[in-house]
Formats: sequence, C-alpha cells, structure tokens
Amino acid sequence: MGQGVANAVGFAMAAKYASNILNSDECKIIDHKVYCLCGDGDLQEGISYEACSLAGTLGLDNLILIYDSNNITIEGDTSIAWNEDVKARFEAQGWAVSRIDGHNFDEIDIALEEAKNRCKPTLIIADTVIAKGACELEGSHHSHGAPLGEEEIAAAKQKCGFDDKKSFQVDEDVKARFEIAVEKGDLAEAEWSANIRKKISEEQQRLLDQLENPDFDKIEWPKFESNQSIATRESNGKILNAIAKALPGFMGGSADLGPSNKSELKGMGDFPFGRNMHFGIREHAMAAICNAFSLYGLFIPYSATFFIFSDYLKPAARLAALMNLKTYFIWTHDSIGVGEDGPTHQPIEQLSQFRALPNFKVFRPADANENVACWQVALKSDGPAAFVCSRQKLEVLKPDVAFGDPTKGGYLLKERKDAKFTFIASGSEVILALKSACALEKEGIMVNVVSMPCMEIFNAQDDAYKQKVINPSTKRVAIEASSGVEWYRYADVVIGMQSFGASAKADDLFKHFGFTQESICEKVRQL
Amino acid sequence: MGQGVANAVGFAMAAKYASNILNSDECKIIDHKVYCLCGDGDLQEGISYEACSLAGTLGLDNLILIYDSNNITIEGDTSIAWNEDVKARFEAQGWAVSRIDGHNFDEIDIALEEAKNRCKPTLIIADTVIAKGACELEGSHHSHGAPLGEEEIAAAKQKCGFDDKKSFQVDEDVKARFEIAVEKGDLAEAEWSANIRKKISEEQQRLLDQLENPDFDKIEWPKFESNQSIATRESNGKILNAIAKALPGFMGGSADLGPSNKSELKGMGDFPFGRNMHFGIREHAMAAICNAFSLYGLFIPYSATFFIFSDYLKPAARLAALMNLKTYFIWTHDSIGVGEDGPTHQPIEQLSQFRALPNFKVFRPADANENVACWQVALKSDGPAAFVCSRQKLEVLKPDVAFGDPTKGGYLLKERKDAKFTFIASGSEVILALKSACALEKEGIMVNVVSMPCMEIFNAQDDAYKQKVINPSTKRVAIEASSGVEWYRYADVVIGMQSFGASAKADDLFKHFGFTQESICEKVRQL
Repeated sequence: MGQGVANAVGFAMAAKYASNILNSDECKIIDHKVYCLCGDGDLQEGISYEACSLAGTLGLDNLILIYDSNNITIEGDTSIAWNEDVKARFEAQGWAVSRIDGHNFDEIDIALEEAKNRCKPTLIIADTVIAKGACELEGSHHSHGAPLGEEEIAAAKQKCGFDDKKSFQVDEDVKARFEIAVEKGDLAEAEWSANIRKKISEEQQRLLDQLENPDFDKIEWPKFESNQSIATRESNGKILNAIAKALPGFMGGSADLGPSNKSELKGMGDFPFGRNMHFGIREHAMAAICNAFSLYGLFIPYSATFFIFSDYLKPAARLAALMNLKTYFIWTHDSIGVGEDGPTHQPIEQLSQFRALPNFKVFRPADANENVACWQVALKSDGPAAFVCSRQKLEVLKPDVAFGDPTKGGYLLKERKDAKFTFIASGSEVILALKSACALEKEGIMVNVVSMPCMEIFNAQDDAYKQKVINPSTKRVAIEASSGVEWYRYADVVIGMQSFGASAKADDLFKHFGFTQESICEKVRQL
Repeated sequence: MGQGVANAVGFAMAAKYASNILNSDECKIIDHKVYCLCGDGDLQEGISYEACSLAGTLGLDNLILIYDSNNITIEGDTSIAWNEDVKARFEAQGWAVSRIDGHNFDEIDIALEEAKNRCKPTLIIADTVIAKGACELEGSHHSHGAPLGEEEIAAAKQKCGFDDKKSFQVDEDVKARFEIAVEKGDLAEAEWSANIRKKISEEQQRLLDQLENPDFDKIEWPKFESNQSIATRESNGKILNAIAKALPGFMGGSADLGPSNKSELKGMGDFPFGRNMHFGIREHAMAAICNAFSLYGLFIPYSATFFIFSDYLKPAARLAALMNLKTYFIWTHDSIGVGEDGPTHQPIEQLSQFRALPNFKVFRPADANENVACWQVALKSDGPAAFVCSRQKLEVLKPDVAFGDPTKGGYLLKERKDAKFTFIASGSEVILALKSACALEKEGIMVNVVSMPCMEIFNAQDDAYKQKVINPSTKRVAIEASSGVEWYRYADVVIGMQSFGASAKADDLFKHFGFTQESICEKVRQL
C-alpha cells in the first residue's frame, strides 16, 4: 500500500544525510544504495506519489525502485483503473527510468548496473507475468490473493522440470550459488569494516558514537518562568532545539507548516547538509520517511503538522507503533483553540483515535514546563510518541502548584482533604480545571485536580497509584476540549465536545462550547 | 489539501454517469462541465494524484482543473520540496495541459474555451504571483497564512487606482458587469429548463424522479434463515444488491477489493455505463469521489475496502460527517478474525476512532439479519454510515433469540430476571456473549445480553431507555475484539484487545486473545 516505497525514500534520505556528515574522502562509512521492490498497488497509492515526488526533487541518486509490473490487480487487469504512462510520470518527477523484461536475468543485471551510476533516483519497470510458470493461473488475477492449490503447483513444477513430489526442495547447484552469494557479501562487508577501522578519523568516530548512542543526559532543558503565557507549540519548539543541540541525530521537519508548528531547528541548515527537512504538503510520506529514519539506526526523527492533519498520516503512525519505532510526531493547533480556521481545522476525535492505538504515547502537556517533563519521559521510552500542542498561549503554572511529575502519565496537581470532586484534564484544559476548582473552593466545594498529559502511561500504572491520583470516593469529572469518549474509564462525567467545532475567535469558541470557569462550575454544582 | 480536487473528479464522474443514463439525443438533461481551482498544496497531496490518475484513465472530458501556480508555499518557494514538471506529469496521466499567464484575462478565456472541446480532462496551469498588487508582500510566502495588514492594503489600493479610504467598495461599472453575468447565467438556465420540460420523455422523467426521490420502501430486503452461518461481508453484499435493484441511484465500488468486500452489484455493469466503479488501489480518492457523488444530488454512493484501510481515507470520511453527506462505507475484515494476514491487516483502534467522530454512524451487525435491520436504519437517517463486517462466518441468530431491533442503536437480546451481569457486544462477539451467558446460566449465574450494533445511536437515547437495556444494578461487561476504550461509558469491565493482533488462523487468534466462551466465563466468574 505504498508504505514501503515511502520508507525506501526515507532510507535513501537517511543514507544521504549520514554520508554527508560522516564520510570523508578517505573513509566512506556510508557507502550503499537503497533497493526497493514494489507493485501496482504501491504506485497507485497517493503516499508513493508523494514520496517519489520528493525523491526526484532531492535527486536521491542512491535510490533504486524496481516496479514489478504484471498488469494484474485483485479486480482484474490494471487498465480498468490505471492507464497512465508510468515511465513518463516518473521522468516528469525527476527520475531516470528503464524498462526491462522482468523474467530476463541479463536485463535485470544490466538495469541494476546502469542504475548505480546515475545522478538521479532510478525506476526500473520490470514487465512480468503474474504466477509465471503456473499452467492455468499464469497471468490471471485469480492468482493474486489465493494460493495456487496442489494440482497447479504440481503442474508448474513439472513444467520447470522439477520433481513434483518434493516440497521445499533446494537442489545442490542452487544451494551452491546462494552460498557463493553469501560469501561474496560477507567478504565485501569484511573489507568495508576493515577499511573503516583503519581509516576512520577521531572526529568521525566521535560523531558515529554520538549517533549510535545518543546521550539524553547532555540535553540542557529549557526552564520557563511562571510569570508568562506561552503556547505549548512555542515551548515545544524551544525543546526541539535544545534536544537537537545535544543530539546530532535528532532531526526532522514539517509538511510545509514549519513556521506554525515551530518545528524549525534554528541555525542547523537544510537537508541534505543540515537537519531541517522540507517535506512539502505531504503528511503521509513525511511520516513514513521518518519511520525509515528511525529504522536506519543513526537518527531520532520528528515530523510536524497540524493535529487535524494527523488524519492524513494515520497509517504510517500505526506502523511506527507496530514496529515500536522511536519517532516523534509534533501536532500543533490541537483543539477548537485553533479559532477562525473553523471545523475543518479543529481536532475533535483525534485524541481518542491515537489514544486507542496500541503502543503509541500521546502527550498533551498543560504548560511549557510539563512539556519539558513529557519530553524527558518520551525520550527515555521505547516506541513512538506524539506531542499535541496548543496554538493559543497557556499560562505557565507556578512551581508550587505543579508539584507532580508526568512519569506515571497523570498526577495530582491539587489535592484537598474531603474533596467531593476530582477534575481530570490535559493540555489547555488543565489551567481551566484548576481555576474552576479554586472558584468552587471559595463556595466550600473541595476539588482535587489531576493533570493527565499521557493517558497511555497512566493506564499502565497499578490500581494503588491510580486510586491515589483519582480518589474513587470523589465524583470524577474529565474536562477536555475533544470527543473524550475514552475518559469514561476514569470519569463519571465527561465535559467534552459533542459536535464539530466552529469558526470564531478561540475565546468565543471556548465560551460557546462550555469551556469557561463559569460554565464548568455551573455544571459541577448541578452534579 | 487535495480533497477538492478529488471531489471535482467525483463530480465529473457523477455527471458522466448521469448523462449516460439520463440523456437522449433530443434532451440533454445533464449538460455541464466541472471546474475546479487548486493550488500547490492540493497537487502535492497524494489524494489529488490518485484522483487525477483515475480521471485520466476514465478520460473525463467534462473536467477542467485550474492550477494557481504561484510557486509559494508556507515554508517558502515550492522548489524546496517540489520541482516536478507538472505539465509532463499530467500528460503522462492522460490529461491535456495548457499553460497560461494567470493574470491575463484573454489567456484565461482562450484556455477555458479550448478546454471545452477536448476529449480528455484538462489542466490549465495558470502562472501567478501571490499577493499580486501588494507592494511589499507581492511574491512573498509571508502573504500565505497571514493578513496583509492595513498599511499594505491601503498601498495596494492606491497602486490600483482605488480610493484606499473605502472598504468593500464596488464601483458601478464592476457591479454592472457582474449583473450582466448573472443575467446571462439566468437566461442559459431558463433556456435549458424550458428545453428539458419540452423534450423530456416519459422514461427520462421517471428515471429522474427515481434518482431525485429514492423510495426505500421498494427495497426487497433479503431474509436469512437461522440454520446457517454466513459472514456479514457476504450478507452485506446481498443487501447492497437488493438496495441497488430498487434504487437506480445506488452505486459504488471498492479500492480493488471488490471480490473480498463482496461489494459488486451483480449484472449492473461497469462505470461509466454501469454502476460498479473500479477505484484502483486508492482509498483516499475513492472516499472523496463518493462524497462528490453524494453532493451531486442524484446518487447514493458507497465505497468499500478492508476496515484496516479506513485509515487511508479518514480525512474524507471526516468531511462526509462534517458535511452530513449520505454516503456509505463498507469496511470488511473487521477484527483479528482476518487471520493469517496478521497485525498489519487487523483493525484494533478503528472502531474507537470512528465512534469518536461526530455525526458518523458505525454499524457492526451481529449477524445477517441484524445487518439488514441496520441498513434499514441507516438509509432512513441523514449523514454517513459505515458497515463494519466480518470476514469469517457468523451464525445467523434464531428469530426467537433476536427479538430486539437496532433502531435505538442497542437492544436486549436476552433478559433474565435477577441478572447479575450484563454483557454488551457488537458484531462477531454477540454470539460469543450469548453462548457465554448460556453457559454461565447453567451454573446459576444469570446474565443479560445486549447487542449494540451502533453505539452512536444508543448514545442519543434517553436515560430511561439506556437503563432498561443496560440494567445499572448489574455488573456490566463489554466484549469486543477491538481496543474498546469507548465502552467504559457503559461498562465496568471491558474485554477487548490490549495490543496489536498476530498472524494465525482466526480461531487460534480468538483463543489466544481470550475471545472464547471458556475464557469469557472464567473472567466473569472472577468478577
């Protein structure tokens, strides 16, 4: 479904940047091409178009994509839905393209050899026949999704001159050829390793070590004074820059929203010589490329876009979770707080959808300092994490208020004896919960307040901790400007969004949808 | 973000099919082109590539796409991420392309006139300057996302010879020109209407009426006997065909998974003369095209793919919900029941993510007959709905068991006096809940069982109904082979999926992840 093609572009980009910072004329630590096999389905998917368009723009001469073109998809001949001139399309995108008979070994060899010496990415269109050698099903779409069956396999074996009684049979000459190939590979690797050991400079070795073993303790974390208001997208940008200063492998970019996402690494240059990547308006390819950066082994990548556009990259975020990749998603403009851009740009269900995704941490920090604390937790954990940040300014909480830490996902921000209620909130709604609690306290209604920047981590805590934080003898109220369907796990009442947002100033929207101190207090008094 | 381009392709497809079935030589009821304006961001997005590739394949000569090419995106010049030859790319996809100065009115006129007489879709690349006329910001990416500001606007007005003191000023000659344009349009419409009234045949009129006012009472719904097992993807396929037989405007297709989704309308031919659309492996464009079919006013469209690939089309599904479009999503292979294809193909969080989406109904029927009942509810409602169907066979419940109906989203399938537990389930887990309840009953543990095919509808019921169905004095257990984060709203305990799935036979997976009668009973005994 195109993920692999975008991953291949990511591998080639990672190799390109790694070679630019690691190699010297004498010692080429990074010295390889990236090969990728793909099919019709990969190339019909939008993600592969996005990734290949970027690969052409960047002139990735280390990328070789082999397209198994058998003209067959599940519903029949590809021509029912796809008759474009793939060669011309890729050439228009800045690729070199060759076309070969995919069943002719000599042509394969020649095409691969030619591809190695080009200054552009190469597409090799290999014309093939699906189920080649199968008597009845050769060339048929019925061989796409279903097994050939015993009879057909036997007939195919006979046709090739094999013994159809034997299964998983490897002839001696085939085995020998493969053993030779393995030996050839081992030898090349040994040569490369020996050469590097001999010629690597101290400087190269130091950088390689830093890339392979990032030292998170070297990060000089920013501290934010409590006499100010600062959007978490803003504090998050400062944090990204602090991390990048300490870790040479920390890099990323935005899908053309850098200035809004605050995702630029200042003074660190542009890819392929610097660490700022311009992905274009291509969220899906961006996330898949970052997955590849993470898999490459030397980098900790991040991608950035508006939270609403996380929808465009969901499949790649899911694969990051499934593969347990250390990659970060910066998602700013995180609620109706987006304001005038209106409901097309205001996330409602996105927090729920990513909290429901296994092995994926969603951090929604309440203020700039919690933002820092969340990054400290995230970097020391395995797997992917998202930072869901506000467009609008948020008050920085006073240190004596923010006495908890988010290591366990959620913590008591305010605890009162004989509390009748517990408010649970994340992000921009934490300060609202806190102020509402203070107002109610003046009326004699005692309220505990919990900040829960990461529900996934809190879910994993034991019952004792959970009950310490969310006292089960209180009436529990979750407050979040999102669909909030997942809060019922901990809350009796959810004050969330029951509909899409609207287009107006952020303050007016928060008022309209009931996210004000007055509205919260009124609702709570009636419980 | 490319949605509009894919919508335009959908409008042109809808117009093409409508003209094929409605027009006669004498009376062209459908007689228009589809015009779409787009920018760099639209064309960089994968969805627009998918849609335009399909438009080229289908040779949509009624589609004219005007590309405002100003070379500026938010992060700067487009060349930082995009240097492809757009003209050559579109030509490779089967489009005619012309290139004009987008500020030259004559060139615009000529290009539009030429486009009308082609037998392919047309792209007009209009080279423009962003913020044209603004003195300081002309051509700058700073004018993309931010207002020009008062000073800059005043200067621009002066440059054009306008009075910079006046706002929203329309000069008389401009007003006159626009009034003439409106009159010209009114006249053309009146002519077209008069012509149709005069020349429309009885047969044409009848079909037009059927398209404009679909009569759901004419559907001959299939009935499924209870002595069989049938996958809901299979029953759903029969239902689609039954609906299509009664409603000439009911049409759709799959993203190359027709045989697996059972989404083919048998004997109804292929688009553009028949009602089966082959979207290719392009989920995102498919969903956006169906949105346009719905907006066109004559059709009730459906799209189909595996449930896991709903991730690929999420942004278009969201817009269907936001625009309250009557469009249907067929999502088969709905859980770990997918089996051997493994965790990349097994939905976990997808039910949660679409249940969290406002104004979007997710139906997950328990058996073939509930599948019918759900369609009856869906067709009579506004807005989009998804049908989440099993790959594996499901027992058809006996009529005396299935005594409820899904009009209110969830209903009591089995009620016992003095019930200690209530099981709540959907889809393939309903029969499991039922069998587990029967087993526990033999041990003297009484259990109510609720089938909840559509949580969104149940959420909207009053408390009295909710408490009748889910007795609050029972211990409530939700059983669903999905992440299940949203079930805590009604359940004390959720038996769901805590991780991704795995690759094995469906039965082995259900056993491994605890979805067997033995495992459910054991867990419940310990509550």
